[in-house]
Amino acid sequence: MIEAMSRWSPDARGRLEQAAFELFLERGYDQTTVADIALRAGLTERTFFRHYADKREVLFSGQTELKDEMLGVLAGLAPDVPTIESVRIAIEAIASVMRDLRAGARKRQRIIDAHADLQERSLIKRANVTAALADGLTKRGVPDAEANLAADLGMAIFYLAFARWIDDPQEREFADIVHEGFEQLKSLASGR
Amino acid sequence: MIEAMSRWSPDARGRLEQAAFELFLERGYDQTTVADIALRAGLTERTFFRHYADKREVLFSGQTELKDEMLGVLAGLAPDVPTIESVRIAIEAIASVMRDLRAGARKRQRIIDAHADLQERSLIKRANVTAALADGLTKRGVPDAEANLAADLGMAIFYLAFARWIDDPQEREFADIVHEGFEQLKSLASGR
Repeated sequence: MIEAMSRWSPDARGRLEQAAFELFLERGYDQTTVADIALRAGLTERTFFRHYADKREVLFSGQTELKDEMLGVLAGLAPDVPTIESVRIAIEAIASVMRDLRAGARKRQRIIDAHADLQERSLIKRANVTAALADGLTKRGVPDAEANLAADLGMAIFYLAFARWIDDPQEREFADIVHEGFEQLKSLASGR
Repeated sequence: MIEAMSRWSPDARGRLEQAAFELFLERGYDQTTVADIALRAGLTERTFFRHYADKREVLFSGQTELKDEMLGVLAGLAPDVPTIESVRIAIEAIASVMRDLRAGARKRQRIIDAHADLQERSLIKRANVTAALADGLTKRGVPDAEANLAADLGMAIFYLAFARWIDDPQEREFADIVHEGFEQLKSLASGR
């Protein structure tokens, strides 16, 4: 019966994510099982595993999607766009994709902040996304050293903007905060 | 007898580090015990534990020392030194401290690169050092957002320069490679 319900569900994945986030915050990450998540979402465990490899992936699969989005934007840019500008455009693009997800992003961050293992996983994901961005830049012909530095700068701006965005009392747009970060980079680097 | 030897040793800590690095490379990190390290160094386990909490710390205690060195330099700078300049000076200072340690740094990196857990630990250490640098900047009156970005930039330059330094075929000085990184940041940020 529950399985039958899930077949009608237009967004099983979204319901699983929502159920997981709720439970991680209510009971703690370690105390929550895949069975609990499926039950809360009104779906079966089988359905869960069609969407996620394990409960941790509910928190981190979004980073992979954002990485792919970012690399897609980068690959579509004209070859003469300067390095830092191409990084800015790619990162503002993912910030735009995330604009309507502030409440979920805030919950997710609270879950990660409460758990050392998840913080480590998050750092590893960040390192992977940074390496992928550097790789995307070298594919555009940017020399290695410049690509690595530009990717590090871009991801630093992204993550700092992300932290500001989820808690911003004025609820400014994510892409605007990212844009501000790139402006700040310019003035910082020029030695103001 | 061995303990007596250790009392005469002018540099038990250095001998323990050298023994640990050798064994980690010969046998693998997981296959090496504290007893093995002490034996190779001609010291007792008790002496080992006077210097390091565990075998992992042999690899990572240096990062804590560098962090303290960096914060000391930062604290001693005149208040009117611009943010990015103060970060550059602090990071070039630690690069100078490390100048004679290239062979050890190279071994250490090979050990870490071969082991996923150590790579994670290294990322966590990097995040901690970055947070400490940001904190050191806010103590100089730099606003939070600027301090966080400057710390991220500085550590990005440091780690990229470090990777280049340990494998540099021309054996250039670490501080010179760091300096180059800050020049590259300037030209990148200005949108070349």
